[in-house]
Amino acid sequence: MKYCSDCGNTVELGIPEDDNRPRYICNTCNIIHYQNPKLVVGCIPEWENKILLCRRDIEPKKGKWTLPAGYLENGETVENGAIRETLEETGATVTSLCPYLLFDIAHINQLYLMFHSRLIKPDFHVTPESSELALFDETEIPWDEIAFKVIEKTLKQYFKDRRTGSRRTHESVRLGIYETVRQPSAGRLHQRSGRQAR
Amino acid sequence: MKYCSDCGNTVELGIPEDDNRPRYICNTCNIIHYQNPKLVVGCIPEWENKILLCRRDIEPKKGKWTLPAGYLENGETVENGAIRETLEETGATVTSLCPYLLFDIAHINQLYLMFHSRLIKPDFHVTPESSELALFDETEIPWDEIAFKVIEKTLKQYFKDRRTGSRRTHESVRLGIYETVRQPSAGRLHQRSGRQAR
Repeated sequence: MKYCSDCGNTVELGIPEDDNRPRYICNTCNIIHYQNPKLVVGCIPEWENKILLCRRDIEPKKGKWTLPAGYLENGETVENGAIRETLEETGATVTSLCPYLLFDIAHINQLYLMFHSRLIKPDFHVTPESSELALFDETEIPWDEIAFKVIEKTLKQYFKDRRTGSRRTHESVRLGIYETVRQPSAGRLHQRSGRQAR
Repeated sequence: MKYCSDCGNTVELGIPEDDNRPRYICNTCNIIHYQNPKLVVGCIPEWENKILLCRRDIEPKKGKWTLPAGYLENGETVENGAIRETLEETGATVTSLCPYLLFDIAHINQLYLMFHSRLIKPDFHVTPESSELALFDETEIPWDEIAFKVIEKTLKQYFKDRRTGSRRTHESVRLGIYETVRQPSAGRLHQRSGRQAR
């Protein structure tokens, strides 16, 4: 940020009165421009014990597989955001959403909230964001080609819960675990934070 | 937003290619400025079956009572954000945090994530944001003087769970419920959304 979005003059980093961290402050109109983390919402779309994955047709990680997810928009609930992203990326409509996993990815100022969901029918298609869609059971997941660590962790937790029986039915699944995905340079890549509510 | 924060020239609302909603786009450098919801994180600080509330010394709702909560900062985990906000607003240190309630407040582009927590000791004090701090049991809560609907709903759910025994211990409480706080103009003020995972 170099310029004030309110008046167009230059901003400078400084610590405002009654604050304790640097903010961008306008040199002219003195407005403080706060910057905050963004929330990504997404789905684990189930169909008869298989999971719908999409092969990314956009950067980053073009060509890799992922779960449908994207930034929550202003004016949107988290559930509606997850439904919209799934439709946009897979062409599929999901229902019976339940919050499942929340991840902190503090080093890139992001959070991920992933929902359990069910496809209303096994209809999906290539979209501007996805070059290929397919349903996978646990043995078929292309683990070496998953786009993001947070998606790999979501899938691993999902299959683990299913195997151990600790996965609830759709009606009672709770957002039970959240994890801190740490900065690789901290030497503890994507390590579990120790906070595990279940 | 009137000016580009990257180049200082004017922006205009328009729908970018491959998008479906209006964004602020710079007329000069063509950068798209996305705007997304912000996450507020906060605590229900317990001490021996009482809850610590703070009387706001800042607007909005100066003079009303609330739970400690505030915007998550860049680079911060949700848990650390909730601990920091509690310290800043009450002078108290909380521990044993467990995610409890997530609220969509889509009409003001906010989400609230509230944690169960315990005070490490009953030490708290007036701060720049709070003119008074006090521990309340359920019968003492100043229900008519709670600053925000989302805080009232959090407290009501908390006491309801405690009364009905559906409140888990700290170690197993899960983020089990999220609610959509609707826009008053929609005629359904703060109505429960029907999504209730527990």
